Amino acid sequence: NRVICSAFEVENTPSVMVGNKFQLEDVIEAQQFDRETLNAIFEVAREMELVEKNTPGSQLLKGYLMATLFYEPSTRTRLSFESAMKRLGGEVLTTENAREFSSAAKGETLEDTIRTVEGYSDIIVMRHFESGAARRAATTASIPIINAGDGPGQHPTQALLDVYTIEREIGKLDGIKVGLVGDLAYGRTVRSLAHLLAKYHDVKIYFVSPDVVRMKNDIKDYLTSMGIEWEESADLMDVASKCDVIYQTRIQRERFGERIDLYEEARGKYIVNQDVFNVLQKHAVVMHPLPRLDEITVDVDKDPRAAYFRQAKNGLYIRMALLKLLLLGW
Amino acid sequence: NRVICSAFEVENTPSVMVGNKFQLEDVIEAQQFDRETLNAIFEVAREMELVEKNTPGSQLLKGYLMATLFYEPSTRTRLSFESAMKRLGGEVLTTENAREFSSAAKGETLEDTIRTVEGYSDIIVMRHFESGAARRAATTASIPIINAGDGPGQHPTQALLDVYTIEREIGKLDGIKVGLVGDLAYGRTVRSLAHLLAKYHDVKIYFVSPDVVRMKNDIKDYLTSMGIEWEESADLMDVASKCDVIYQTRIQRERFGERIDLYEEARGKYIVNQDVFNVLQKHAVVMHPLPRLDEITVDVDKDPRAAYFRQAKNGLYIRMALLKLLLLGW
Amino acid sequence: NRVICSAFEVENTPSVMVGNKFQLEDVIEAQQFDRETLNAIFEVAREMELVEKNTPGSQLLKGYLMATLFYEPSTRTRLSFESAMKRLGGEVLTTENAREFSSAAKGETLEDTIRTVEGYSDIIVMRHFESGAARRAATTASIPIINAGDGPGQHPTQALLDVYTIEREIGKLDGIKVGLVGDLAYGRTVRSLAHLLAKYHDVKIYFVSPDVVRMKNDIKDYLTSMGIEWEESADLMDVASKCDVIYQTRIQRERFGERIDLYEEARGKYIVNQDVFNVLQKHAVVMHPLPRLDEITVDVDKDPRAAYFRQAKNGLYIRMALLKLLLLGW
Repeated sequence: NRVICSAFEVENTPSVMVGNKFQLEDVIEAQQFDRETLNAIFEVAREMELVEKNTPGSQLLKGYLMATLFYEPSTRTRLSFESAMKRLGGEVLTTENAREFSSAAKGETLEDTIRTVEGYSDIIVMRHFESGAARRAATTASIPIINAGDGPGQHPTQALLDVYTIEREIGKLDGIKVGLVGDLAYGRTVRSLAHLLAKYHDVKIYFVSPDVVRMKNDIKDYLTSMGIEWEESADLMDVASKCDVIYQTRIQRERFGERIDLYEEARGKYIVNQDVFNVLQKHAVVMHPLPRLDEITVDVDKDPRAAYFRQAKNGLYIRMALLKLLLLGW
Repeated sequence: NRVICSAFEVENTPSVMVGNKFQLEDVIEAQQFDRETLNAIFEVAREMELVEKNTPGSQLLKGYLMATLFYEPSTRTRLSFESAMKRLGGEVLTTENAREFSSAAKGETLEDTIRTVEGYSDIIVMRHFESGAARRAATTASIPIINAGDGPGQHPTQALLDVYTIEREIGKLDGIKVGLVGDLAYGRTVRSLAHLLAKYHDVKIYFVSPDVVRMKNDIKDYLTSMGIEWEESADLMDVASKCDVIYQTRIQRERFGERIDLYEEARGKYIVNQDVFNVLQKHAVVMHPLPRLDEITVDVDKDPRAAYFRQAKNGLYIRMALLKLLLLGW
Repeated sequence: NRVICSAFEVENTPSVMVGNKFQLEDVIEAQQFDRETLNAIFEVAREMELVEKNTPGSQLLKGYLMATLFYEPSTRTRLSFESAMKRLGGEVLTTENAREFSSAAKGETLEDTIRTVEGYSDIIVMRHFESGAARRAATTASIPIINAGDGPGQHPTQALLDVYTIEREIGKLDGIKVGLVGDLAYGRTVRSLAHLLAKYHDVKIYFVSPDVVRMKNDIKDYLTSMGIEWEESADLMDVASKCDVIYQTRIQRERFGERIDLYEEARGKYIVNQDVFNVLQKHAVVMHPLPRLDEITVDVDKDPRAAYFRQAKNGLYIRMALLKLLLLGW
C-alpha cells in the first residue's frame, strides 16, 4: 500500500509524490544512482514484470512518443527499449543508423539534431560512438535523455539490469560474492557493475581474467576506497565454488588488433562449462551481458542456474521502469 | 453461423474451439499444410478482408508485439507483414537488416538471438539467407515463428497467398488448369505452388519455360506420384487458351552468372502481352509473384484478368489470418 | 464556430463540407496551393498545435496507416512525418532506404512499387531522388501521395511550413519584407518560398548571395510578372535592418565540385551573427531550413528572434494538418 499502485494509474499526471523522492530527469551514467534510488527503480521494475504479464498498466504511456536515435547499430538494445515503450502503450520513432542522418553527414552538430528531434518526441534514447555524447545531449534537451551507450563511456541501463538481476536471482545485494570473469580491461559492463556493487555492504569481488585484459587500477582503487574487498585469481573453479554470481564476459577480438595469437589464447582461458557448473553452489547463478560466443558452453543453458536469458529479459523491465519514471515520475 | 464471427471478438482469449481443429504453432514450410488446413486458413483470410474494410475486428491483436527479424532485406514482404499486424491493432518491432545485428556480426548464434528477441515480443517473423534457419528458430523459440523466406528454401506465406488467390479468382481449386511460365528451375514460388496444387483433385499443370530453366525432376516426380497430370509445352499461346490460370515469373538474372547472352535469350522467350490476353478465356487470370520486369507488358495491366496486384493484396489477408491463428487460435 | 472544431471529431467520416471547399487529393508541389488554400491549411495547422498540447483530437487518425517510402535517407523529414501521424493516433510503415528495396534493385518500376504499397497503407509519403517521381506516383496511386522531396524538384511541405512560420512569427504575410540569404541558385527551399510569397500583396524580397549562387532569372521574372518588388543586395547589414524575416540558407558544398576555394569563399561571405542581430528590428525573425553549419553562429540561438527551431517544430503541425486533410477532408 505505497507507491506500488501508482504505476497502474493511467492518468498522465505525475502520480503522488512519495515523501521527498527526487524526480529522475535523465539517465546518463551508472554513477548517478545512489543505493536508495537503485532500490526505488528496482521496485518499479518489479511492478513492470506484472504489467507485462497481466497488462493492467499497459496503457500507462499512451500518447507518449520515444525517439530512438542510434548513431551506431545495436539491435538488441534498440529492440529492448522499443519493446519497453510499446509494452506500456507508448509509440516509437526509430532511427536504426542516425550516423547517416543526412544532417549529421552534412556537418550538423549533435546539439542542433537534439533540438530538432525534441520537437517531435517526448523522450530520446540515444546511442552514440563518442564518450560524453549523452551528457551533451542532456544539457541541450528540454526532454529526458536516456544514454543507451556512448562509445567506450557508459551504458547505464545495462549496469542497472545487471544489479537488478543479481537482486532478483540471489535475493539480496549486501554480503554477496561476485566473480567477474573474462575481459575486465575493456568490458564496459564489468567496470560499471563493479562501480554499482561498491554501493552495497560486505560485497566481495573476484577478478578472473587473462593477463592481457586484467581489471584496471582505477576500479581497484575505487573499490578499496569504498571498503570493498577484492582479489585477483587465476583459478576459475575455486572462485566458482565460492561465489553467488559468476559474471562471464566475451573477450573482444577487436581489442587485439593483429595479435590474433594473443586473442585466441585469452579467449580459451576461462570457459564456463559443465565442470564449472558442477562446483557452483545450488543458489548461485551465471550471468553474461550477451552476445556470447563460446565462453559459456551451450550445454549448460538448460541448467536453472544459467541466468543470462532471464538477465536479458530483465533489461525490458528496467527500461520500462525508467521510461515510466522519466515520463510520469514516481 | 460457424467460426466466422469468432475473428471479430476483441477479447484476447482464444475463441471457441471448433470441433477438433489443430492449433497452428509455427509457419515453416508450404508442405506442412494439408488441404483441410488450407481451407480453414482461407476461411479466416476471407474474414480478414472484411476486417480491413469495415474494421470491426481491427483491435483483435491489440497488446501483441510482432518482431520482424530480417537477415536480408525484403521490403515488400516486410511491409505486408507489418501492415497485417497493424491492421489488427498489433504493434511491431522492426529490424530491416538483422544481418548487421551487432550480435550476429560478433558471432552470436541464431539460437541465442532468438532467445533474446522472444523476451521482447510475442511472435517473430523471420527472413534469413540460409535454408533451414526458420526451422532452427522454431525449435528454439517458445513463441510462434513465421518463415518469411529462408534462402533457397521456403517462402510458405507466398505459396499460401498464391493458392488463396486462385481460389478467390477462379472460385475453385479442384479441376483447374494452371500454366507455370518462366523460371521454373530456380523460382521458389512455382515449386511451392506445384507442391500445394498437388493436394487438390483433377488439377492439370503446364510447364512453359526456356530450356535452361526447366522444371526439375523432383517436382515432376512428386506430381506424378500424387496423380497430378502435367506436361511441358513450348507453345505459350496454346497453353494460355486452355488454362484457368497463367502464373508468370521473372527470369532471375543472378542465376546466369556471366552468360548474359543466355539470360537475354531466356528472358525474351515467353512474354505475356496483349496477344496472350487475346486467347485467354473470359474467366481466366494472369498471376505473378512480383516484382516484374517486362515479362508481362504494362499495357495489359488494366485488363480485369490481370490479377497480380490483387494477388499482392491477398498477401495482406493471408498474413492477417496467420497472425490471428498463431496468436489467438481458431 | 466554423471549421475549427471539425478537426477534433473522432469519427472517420470526412466531416462537414464547409461551403465549396475543395478536397485535397495529393501534395505534389508548392505551386498547387492558392492563397485561399494556404490560409485554410494554416487554420488546420493551428488546431494541430492545440491537439499536440492537450490531445483532444489525438485519436483523429486512429486505424489509418501511413507508409514512408524514402528512396534516399532524410531522417529529419521522415521523423517529422512519422511524429505527425502518431500524434494523431495513426500508424506507420517505415522504409528508411527504399532504394535498396529489393524490388527496385531488381528493376521494378516506381509504378509497380506504388501499386503494391497502396495495398498495404492508406497514404504514402514519398522521398525520391528523381524530379517528377511524386507526380508519377500520384498518377498511379488510388490513395493520397505526399511529396517529401523529389530530387532537385519540389519539397512542398517545407515551403508550406516556411510560409506558416512567417505568418505565426510576424502575424501577417501581406506587406512583409523578406531577405533570402545564402545559396539562392540551388537552394530548393528559397525558390519555393519565393514562389509562394508571390501570392501575397505588397511583398518585398531582397536577395543576398555570393555571386556564384545568385537567384536565377526564372524566379526573378516570375516575381516581376506577379508584381512583386525584389532587389539584389551585397549588404547583409542593410537588408537585415529593413526586413521582417531574414531567411538564411546553407551553401551546399556538393554544388562546387572540386572548386573548394570557391566554396570556402562563398560560405564565409554572409554569416548571420550577433552583429546582424544587433541591427535586426525588435519584431523581426531569423529563419533557416536546417541543418546549419556556421552560417548562423550558435551564440544568437538564445535570442528570441532566432526562429529556426520553432520553424522546425512548425513542420510537425503542417504535416499533421496535411495528413488530416488528405485522409479525413476538411
